[in-house]
Amino acid sequence: MTRAADDLSSFIAQCRDRFQTALEFALPLEHGAAPRLMEAMRYAALGGGKRLRPLLAYAACQACGGKLSQADIPAVAVELVHAYSLVHDDLPAMDDDSLRRGQPTCHIAFDEATAILAGDSLQTRAFELLANSGDYKDGQRLEMIRALSHGAGVSGMAAGQMRDIEAEGRALTLEELERIHYLKTGRLITAALLMGAIAADAPAEMQDTLARFGDLIGLAFQIQDDILDVTSTADVLGKPSGSDARHGKSTFPALLGLDASRDRAQALCREAHQLLDGIAEGRNTGPLRDLADYIVGRSH
Amino acid sequence: MTRAADDLSSFIAQCRDRFQTALEFALPLEHGAAPRLMEAMRYAALGGGKRLRPLLAYAACQACGGKLSQADIPAVAVELVHAYSLVHDDLPAMDDDSLRRGQPTCHIAFDEATAILAGDSLQTRAFELLANSGDYKDGQRLEMIRALSHGAGVSGMAAGQMRDIEAEGRALTLEELERIHYLKTGRLITAALLMGAIAADAPAEMQDTLARFGDLIGLAFQIQDDILDVTSTADVLGKPSGSDARHGKSTFPALLGLDASRDRAQALCREAHQLLDGIAEGRNTGPLRDLADYIVGRSH
Repeated sequence: MTRAADDLSSFIAQCRDRFQTALEFALPLEHGAAPRLMEAMRYAALGGGKRLRPLLAYAACQACGGKLSQADIPAVAVELVHAYSLVHDDLPAMDDDSLRRGQPTCHIAFDEATAILAGDSLQTRAFELLANSGDYKDGQRLEMIRALSHGAGVSGMAAGQMRDIEAEGRALTLEELERIHYLKTGRLITAALLMGAIAADAPAEMQDTLARFGDLIGLAFQIQDDILDVTSTADVLGKPSGSDARHGKSTFPALLGLDASRDRAQALCREAHQLLDGIAEGRNTGPLRDLADYIVGRSH
Repeated sequence: MTRAADDLSSFIAQCRDRFQTALEFALPLEHGAAPRLMEAMRYAALGGGKRLRPLLAYAACQACGGKLSQADIPAVAVELVHAYSLVHDDLPAMDDDSLRRGQPTCHIAFDEATAILAGDSLQTRAFELLANSGDYKDGQRLEMIRALSHGAGVSGMAAGQMRDIEAEGRALTLEELERIHYLKTGRLITAALLMGAIAADAPAEMQDTLARFGDLIGLAFQIQDDILDVTSTADVLGKPSGSDARHGKSTFPALLGLDASRDRAQALCREAHQLLDGIAEGRNTGPLRDLADYIVGRSH
């Protein structure tokens, strides 16, 4: 293992347990109002995944001089929004996927109506948590809610999903494709970073740098996703490969070719690293750098 | 027209224009990120309806000594959550309704994927508005977000919808039926009242009274809804009547009979009035009383 990979493994290990505990706490099994609903929410959120957005929230918080514990709530909140988007994205009326992280998708394991409600409630819970949980000043809570709602809604992720659907079967320009992915993936990744920074009370210029960092690695993430959809197998991905081609979706490999797509992802990653070079010395930006490398180097 | 009906008409007229303006402002047509998504959100939210929850937010704000303008944002936020729930409720996997307020439902007018995303984005927008818009103290914004997320999520409306679905085709006891409706309808009505009170900086005891008032009229509203589903026509309702029977849903008329159901709704309304008698003199509780009367007297 290289030094960076070793450091990243150690960072992930530090975050994993505390994140899992915070996530379990946010979705208590003994919740009485509608046990089946909570069960479906837990199925969708607790079933693993890379936890990339939580890791970015933790790494941003640490880079801003905060403790990991300060990022628990934003890490959970952004993951709940991500989980809700996957549940709804997998529905028959959307991507109609039956496999996610190697497991049946929520509407297969439960049913469609339950999956719709579980997605809805995961979103609500994210905002409820930010308003109620952890130890933050009112102003921090509101800033985090602003970052998350902006990243998730009609100016962010949901807009990207809409445009992604509208683009199916149509050949996109590179610019159009980048715009879709910037909205669909980049905005929520940026929200994760911003919330981590807000939780650490970071100044505005630090937040701006992290937002630009998020835009770069968000796009790199999506390019790598497209590459893996072409080059990998369902076994490795935990979901069917070749799904983009089946849905008639434009992809970076289709537009640029595989080699140029890899080059572009690497270039975005280098640019992201350079942004961090501008951050004041003494800040621990190692995990952010390692996560950027991981995004373009990952195999699933 | 009776005096109360006349007063209520005048209150509704006062609220209607300002509410419509605030709602339009919250869903700007020129929004660039995904025009079709915003179009579907506007279709779902701007297409009329009784606006009961906004009216309750305005009435609560006024009863707590606030100006109507202070309730604009919570009125819009609660209506956006209500609109999202209707869009998702109407989906084929849920109630599969094609008519709402006399118009094609969102997934008929657009398509299912767009309707799912529009519902999702209406919810996000509600929290985004409460965090950003209007002139409130940070603490008020957070209290409103807490009230809305509690009323909408896994402890409120969504839990009620889940239990409503689970109960289809099964005979419920009166207690079970009341519990479902308390969650499904009552919690969001209570959230509307609480947010109006918070916007007017009302003390905790006033908020408690309004929460109990909301529980009573929320249940009365649902009883009247069940009565109308049996006794009215699609023309009057703007949606198919007899829908409960078709979905094998337990209803108050089926459990209690029509007359006893009407009596129960009236009794809840009287109890709600009595609660307001305990509010300090000089407070304008007229609109709240009139809205309670309207709920049990309405024909659609």
